[in-house]
Amino acid sequence: MEMVNLSLTEAYALAHKVLRGNGFSEAHAAAVAKNVTHGERDGCASHGLWRLLGIVETLRKGKVSPDVEPVITDTAPAIVKADAGGAFSLLAFERALPLLMEKARHCGIAALAINRCVHFSALFADVEPLTEAGLVALATTPSHAWVAPAGGTQPLFGTNPIAFGWPRGDKPPFIFDMATSAAARGEIQLHQRAGKAVPEGWGIDSNGQATTDAQAILDGAMLTFGGHKGSALAAMVELLAGPLIGDMTSAESLAWDNGAGGLPYGGELILALDPTRFLGDDAATHLARAETLFSGMQQQGARLPGERRYHSRERANRDGVEITHSLFRDISALLK
Amino acid sequence: MEMVNLSLTEAYALAHKVLRGNGFSEAHAAAVAKNVTHGERDGCASHGLWRLLGIVETLRKGKVSPDVEPVITDTAPAIVKADAGGAFSLLAFERALPLLMEKARHCGIAALAINRCVHFSALFADVEPLTEAGLVALATTPSHAWVAPAGGTQPLFGTNPIAFGWPRGDKPPFIFDMATSAAARGEIQLHQRAGKAVPEGWGIDSNGQATTDAQAILDGAMLTFGGHKGSALAAMVELLAGPLIGDMTSAESLAWDNGAGGLPYGGELILALDPTRFLGDDAATHLARAETLFSGMQQQGARLPGERRYHSRERANRDGVEITHSLFRDISALLK
Repeated sequence: MEMVNLSLTEAYALAHKVLRGNGFSEAHAAAVAKNVTHGERDGCASHGLWRLLGIVETLRKGKVSPDVEPVITDTAPAIVKADAGGAFSLLAFERALPLLMEKARHCGIAALAINRCVHFSALFADVEPLTEAGLVALATTPSHAWVAPAGGTQPLFGTNPIAFGWPRGDKPPFIFDMATSAAARGEIQLHQRAGKAVPEGWGIDSNGQATTDAQAILDGAMLTFGGHKGSALAAMVELLAGPLIGDMTSAESLAWDNGAGGLPYGGELILALDPTRFLGDDAATHLARAETLFSGMQQQGARLPGERRYHSRERANRDGVEITHSLFRDISALLK
Repeated sequence: MEMVNLSLTEAYALAHKVLRGNGFSEAHAAAVAKNVTHGERDGCASHGLWRLLGIVETLRKGKVSPDVEPVITDTAPAIVKADAGGAFSLLAFERALPLLMEKARHCGIAALAINRCVHFSALFADVEPLTEAGLVALATTPSHAWVAPAGGTQPLFGTNPIAFGWPRGDKPPFIFDMATSAAARGEIQLHQRAGKAVPEGWGIDSNGQATTDAQAILDGAMLTFGGHKGSALAAMVELLAGPLIGDMTSAESLAWDNGAGGLPYGGELILALDPTRFLGDDAATHLARAETLFSGMQQQGARLPGERRYHSRERANRDGVEITHSLFRDISALLK
């Protein structure tokens, strides 16, 4: 396959130009361009430059605001609210981040609720800035109702990711970012396009029967990972990043989409915890216990989540990223 | 099997008498007796009156303090610390609860870190008082290193339960309380005693090979639920309720036990979130969205977590509880 090599600066410039050219404000274009460039850099192509196609399509359908400024509200001593006003979540997160960190450092723990945001980005990106600041972070968001609860047969939950981050000083943070569905919806779509069966346990058909037929699952329901335990966690995500913060559940988001095939629309909840407030002068001693846990994992061959990502990042910082010529052409075509 | 019927008052009185008779202070005896009576009432025999045998044995081995008073510290605007001083967690929780609730209501979110506690009780019991007060709650604790990380072969994580609760006004709360291990350790021990094979996926032998032999798993390692995703969550529990709050990981707890076969010793983290602080005047509207989610689950035959428990409770409140005569005799023998 013919590949195009881009330095990270070139990748960002391309993304930025496409977004500005299609009407996104400077602030939104910068936040989105940074996000998709970082996804590509980190070897996470599904959240990389490819996303620009869907982002521009969403804008052209009128399903996302290109320029609304987020409104940040100081709701309670340990709560920040960010109203994204129908734009992507990223700028709202960026603008609310300083106040979230300030509250976490003062109170010990604090929450950021982002409301009315269109969501396409990996939660990893919202956790990493907190770990870089020495904070522990937890982030979650519903999506569209595609996943059946354990014991049920109909789509109700979203793919409902949970991301968690732990700061490690000079080392890359410990971060996982996982869907509570057994597989990503994009994975099932890729199998469907390739005409390939999916592994068992990914989904059920519209009669509630287990199937490995990708199209039948897309017409039926995906399943959660880990049976009723994964299902319980998916419900928790609905509650925490839906009703608790005054925003939509995955079922409401899909109903709001009304068949347009757009991105999930709703809320995101991010918690930040400050180890120095929990631990005081003993913080260094206790954070060393975490390092012992990590080396206990690595010594027996268990990978730390995020390792693959940091290796990709190192390589991309040096060599740039490679995308297919066809993707490069499709993205360039968005400039008209 | 010959059964003994006890009203809940009788069950509590028996537990209380056994605990007082063996040297527990009035405050600790009351907290523990209430907990095991509630476990029995809720149909959760593994956290019921049976526990008294292990509790008294732990005391006689000198592995738990019968009378130390917990020390509650107001560490930060949204953090309470409770030093259990080597006693069971329950009294420390009870004593810290009012301050945790006050902080959650003031700040919107707050954390309680219980330190240096011996832990035998289900987290359900620490979540329910918060949901009864209209708060959302999340609780977690490490245990002993019995569970291998995904990709590894050696025990490192505990069974690391996560419990989550959502208040539902007049209705019983939505609460789940689940181990991040594929099965409870007690389940594997029951299979071992009965000479029965366990289901696949519960554990590996000491060579890291998958096995259904219960003894081989007890000598080897248990597995997490849901593969690498469950493993990531188990690691998160180690971090949140270990190093973050200045307490032991499961590996450290097992090392501290030094082969005595005692209960896990370490910390517990409880988060409380106040929906009214997140939602203001719109709380009722948004909490109704959660009820729509729950009925969406129930309408398709998916059970809400905790349902079985509330049915047991209703029955026990009316008819009392039944335990085997042999258990009744063993408990009574603790009175000497």
